Amino acid sequence: MNNIFNFSISTGKREEFINITHLLNRAVKDSGIQNGMAVVYCPHTTAGITINENADPDVVYDILKILDRAFPAKGDYRHYEGNSHAHAKASCIGSSCSIIISDGKPLLGTWQGVYFCEFDGPRSRKVCISCIGTS
Amino acid sequence: MNNIFNFSISTGKREEFINITHLLNRAVKDSGIQNGMAVVYCPHTTAGITINENADPDVVYDILKILDRAFPAKGDYRHYEGNSHAHAKASCIGSSCSIIISDGKPLLGTWQGVYFCEFDGPRSRKVCISCIGTS
Amino acid sequence: MNNIFNFSISTGKREEFINITHLLNRAVKDSGIQNGMAVVYCPHTTAGITINENADPDVVYDILKILDRAFPAKGDYRHYEGNSHAHAKASCIGSSCSIIISDGKPLLGTWQGVYFCEFDGPRSRKVCISCIGTS
Repeated sequence: MNNIFNFSISTGKREEFINITHLLNRAVKDSGIQNGMAVVYCPHTTAGITINENADPDVVYDILKILDRAFPAKGDYRHYEGNSHAHAKASCIGSSCSIIISDGKPLLGTWQGVYFCEFDGPRSRKVCISCIGTS
Repeated sequence: MNNIFNFSISTGKREEFINITHLLNRAVKDSGIQNGMAVVYCPHTTAGITINENADPDVVYDILKILDRAFPAKGDYRHYEGNSHAHAKASCIGSSCSIIISDGKPLLGTWQGVYFCEFDGPRSRKVCISCIGTS
Repeated sequence: MNNIFNFSISTGKREEFINITHLLNRAVKDSGIQNGMAVVYCPHTTAGITINENADPDVVYDILKILDRAFPAKGDYRHYEGNSHAHAKASCIGSSCSIIISDGKPLLGTWQGVYFCEFDGPRSRKVCISCIGTS
């Protein structure tokens, strides 16, 4: 059985974190997997996936600001597209998150949400979620 | 079969890395999984999981210092709790680590240990470890 | 069945990203897994695994430069080996990447390649790839 679910999302800003927890919930439910794990995967190189606070939107706003300070947009870079900082942020944040599936549900902490992290938008993007384990 | 193991740990400082390799070893052993993988998962948003040197404790001390410089505690942040830097560190380090299980044991390198990374302690925390594969 | 594949690589510089996508392709093919996931794992503590652009080599050159600025080699560090920055980069980049396997192939995006990230070379290094799922 192929438990891979593909989603399309549109990002609206140059940089933003979009909460995609509902996509994870849907994929896990539709997979029928009761115990195992899900991989939420970003097939792009200037975007990533992270897990962070789902309550106060100021948290992800601040994270973007902190990343911008650590990996600045301006620098003596070689890459001709001028988005090297976006590639660096993608590698720092990572291209995927792994989430445990327990009793048919993603085992997220109370305050955790899954985010698609856009670092070079706005663009049309894809997210792939694979669920493996036992039904 | 539900191969999920939950552990409680107490962190003692505002920031510290706690070696939890023994919890991984225990979970893998108790799961009976011979070949597959383990996910060590942190269900919190101001803490994470990483793999790094298990020998000289100065290494993780230095990593905390380096992270503090890259993601400073003070800044023009919006989040009212004043711990935005801890959230940023959590997303940089990541909420989980995946470890290969081979012949019933975690396939860690000689110098590798698994660490719970506290960025906003001291607190009571949880760690979840899921093992999947073949017995 | 034990679907773990071990590879040896030699890094040639103090810091470099080596494209190892062909090793992932080989492991997935040899595993016979049709649907599931692969974990590309680095058993070292001054190196890591990341996914980023496979086309313009200037991208990974710039990422190394950006990481060097964020996690500087010189600092008031304690670790006697003088490579604390390499350990910090390893934890930022991460020790593994998870890739979805679909229809017998790694589900990488068009521009994505898998890289071994050397932060304290040149050295002989190992990479382990585990494939799990259904044949």
